[in-house]
Amino acid sequence: MKRFAAEFVGTALLLCTVIGSGVMAERLAGGNLAVALSANAAATGAILYVLISLFGPISGAHFNPVVTLAFALRGEIGPGVAAVYAGVQAVGGIVGAWLAHLMFELPVLQVSDHPREGPAQWLSEGVAAFGLVLTILGGLRWRSERVPSLVALYICAAYWFTASTSFANPAAVFARTLSNTFAGIAPASALPFVLAQVAGAALAVGVAHWLFRPESAQ
Amino acid sequence: MKRFAAEFVGTALLLCTVIGSGVMAERLAGGNLAVALSANAAATGAILYVLISLFGPISGAHFNPVVTLAFALRGEIGPGVAAVYAGVQAVGGIVGAWLAHLMFELPVLQVSDHPREGPAQWLSEGVAAFGLVLTILGGLRWRSERVPSLVALYICAAYWFTASTSFANPAAVFARTLSNTFAGIAPASALPFVLAQVAGAALAVGVAHWLFRPESAQ
Amino acid sequence: MKRFAAEFVGTALLLCTVIGSGVMAERLAGGNLAVALSANAAATGAILYVLISLFGPISGAHFNPVVTLAFALRGEIGPGVAAVYAGVQAVGGIVGAWLAHLMFELPVLQVSDHPREGPAQWLSEGVAAFGLVLTILGGLRWRSERVPSLVALYICAAYWFTASTSFANPAAVFARTLSNTFAGIAPASALPFVLAQVAGAALAVGVAHWLFRPESAQ
Amino acid sequence: MKRFAAEFVGTALLLCTVIGSGVMAERLAGGNLAVALSANAAATGAILYVLISLFGPISGAHFNPVVTLAFALRGEIGPGVAAVYAGVQAVGGIVGAWLAHLMFELPVLQVSDHPREGPAQWLSEGVAAFGLVLTILGGLRWRSERVPSLVALYICAAYWFTASTSFANPAAVFARTLSNTFAGIAPASALPFVLAQVAGAALAVGVAHWLFRPESAQ
Repeated sequence: MKRFAAEFVGTALLLCTVIGSGVMAERLAGGNLAVALSANAAATGAILYVLISLFGPISGAHFNPVVTLAFALRGEIGPGVAAVYAGVQAVGGIVGAWLAHLMFELPVLQVSDHPREGPAQWLSEGVAAFGLVLTILGGLRWRSERVPSLVALYICAAYWFTASTSFANPAAVFARTLSNTFAGIAPASALPFVLAQVAGAALAVGVAHWLFRPESAQ
Repeated sequence: MKRFAAEFVGTALLLCTVIGSGVMAERLAGGNLAVALSANAAATGAILYVLISLFGPISGAHFNPVVTLAFALRGEIGPGVAAVYAGVQAVGGIVGAWLAHLMFELPVLQVSDHPREGPAQWLSEGVAAFGLVLTILGGLRWRSERVPSLVALYICAAYWFTASTSFANPAAVFARTLSNTFAGIAPASALPFVLAQVAGAALAVGVAHWLFRPESAQ
Repeated sequence: MKRFAAEFVGTALLLCTVIGSGVMAERLAGGNLAVALSANAAATGAILYVLISLFGPISGAHFNPVVTLAFALRGEIGPGVAAVYAGVQAVGGIVGAWLAHLMFELPVLQVSDHPREGPAQWLSEGVAAFGLVLTILGGLRWRSERVPSLVALYICAAYWFTASTSFANPAAVFARTLSNTFAGIAPASALPFVLAQVAGAALAVGVAHWLFRPESAQ
Repeated sequence: MKRFAAEFVGTALLLCTVIGSGVMAERLAGGNLAVALSANAAATGAILYVLISLFGPISGAHFNPVVTLAFALRGEIGPGVAAVYAGVQAVGGIVGAWLAHLMFELPVLQVSDHPREGPAQWLSEGVAAFGLVLTILGGLRWRSERVPSLVALYICAAYWFTASTSFANPAAVFARTLSNTFAGIAPASALPFVLAQVAGAALAVGVAHWLFRPESAQ
């Protein structure tokens, strides 16, 4: 029960940060979107370090259905629990978006009209999710206490090196369809993002299985 | 005695940094408030890491009456000591504000005319204090040596994801009513901020009590 | 075999980040190149921390022919393996550049027309590589678990304190000749950069041999 | 002998970074001095983390005559060695300034015409040096392995919360009189800076002696 609560609170605070910091940064940046994205990326990375440190020992701190999928593919979480995780993450993300809207005096219920589409965007999401899952699995293999900083810094970098600013998370895509702000994505753009993320994550599970397995198992 | 001195010096240097870096950043930012807030947030986070590392072993490094309140609610600090802590923090914060004014050649005695009000601001402060206390209690539960980096990065994020830039600290509110600068808040706006912070902190104590208690105690 | 794969994937993701974040930052920065370079440096530093943490235990995480050269000069890697490392790094870097181009909808095959030449640039590259190799060898001498953060922060600083933005890596030079973007370098400028890097790295090996050798060996 | 070399190389690279990153940042920032100072502060903090990690085990990584003075006042370094430290630091800082000038194609020999004077600036330097020495002594008392990150983050904060951008180091003052760039200071402004730094450092030694001494010694 606690682990579902941890996934809920963690995903809510993560999306609240992604969306809230995007609103604040865009309002203050005077049109310089690189300044806005710097603040958005730094705030997201910082809260990821905090949330993974707080909730990792309870739920594993996935906050992300493709991360849960990766652990399911590795047989480290059962399909039933994984499904509940994904559902809780999706709801948590939406609650986080709404909380951000309330704090910034925006209508709670919104739908984004920001299209994000095309093969370059989808490739970006595949690369972003590949790197995220590889980071988590490699971190757990060598230095599990470093996973919070690894994920935080990976996402800070991926905001910049992917053309999509690295959603890399279907729960984030879902929540961000419901926010017509800096971080939003139009609902019509959501499905290909999620498919690309699933593909990237699955590829990372395969690569990590080979690259990070203990020598004694070879 | 030393612990009161640690709370005094720590809260003074914290508020000196919040206010001083706000003045410096606004002066240099040429009107780009996102650039100014980035510097303000980074300086605050950096000094929090330092101050909590230095003074944590002496006083617990609260620097914040709602943090002290949270430990009092948990029975980890007596009400008498807690009251002295809060008083010392309030005075320390004011001294820090005045020190910043002296360094930046501003009148020492000032009153802010910057109103910060309305339900969205109050919600922001409740969320900010909830997250801060949850961060501290979760950090202490799992990895106490990581509390300085957790609090520092939480506050860096909260500057951006709340609409109020996350005061989250009644001693900071009090000191910042006495600074008519970037970080200031009008005295008439102070009380609802403090009430929202108390509510957020109390809620966090309850959530943390359930979420972070040892399994053996369930 | 795995170590060559680690060098390949690591160098590819490193150059993908250097070039991709440069494109993103320049597009969004509205002409303020300091904002663009800040994002470029932060993204590079962040991904270096991740990649060295993930691949260090497999290959040593060189991602850089002059780092491999330094270990070869110290007799810690044989010349045959070192040559394969350098080749894999060179190919990996190019693949990373092409991946960045694909993500940002740029022509995959490009050649930079950005000249970077003159003694001040070459001195910069010598200093940059000297500092990088000294950082790695000193980190390994005293605190090997800190090498990822040391290299990441060294490169963040070196982006700013050298006039060349610190390539410090022949594989990066090679890949960046093939990208006519923010991070590019014209092919005609490449050879002196590489020579300066080799000289700086070799000097660092000598200085480190004396400065960091165990007292008992004196 | 090695410790003097460590102080020389460390102080040279520190000042090379302070001055070089200042030149680069000002050139690129398009007049937004907050953006320039952000880069300058981040580069300085990053290199401090590196240099203290590399050279701390050899020389203590002072790089700063008032830090050496603080250890001399505590009887942890003899006056003869302390004098050599200070001399080596002064020369190292100048060499670092000249190296930065060479990398940025500036005349090697320069004198700053940037006055920095008045009681507010002097107070700033006293506060800056007080905080620096307190940070070092507190870090050594509780967690010596954290001194590199503590000093790095303290200086990042102090760039912003002091009106002088926190020189806090007589070797830095001396070297920066010889650089007519972003980080420069006119020679006529140097002496009061140094006196304020000495006063702040001495005060910190006294405060730390009381605040951080082991309980068993009380």
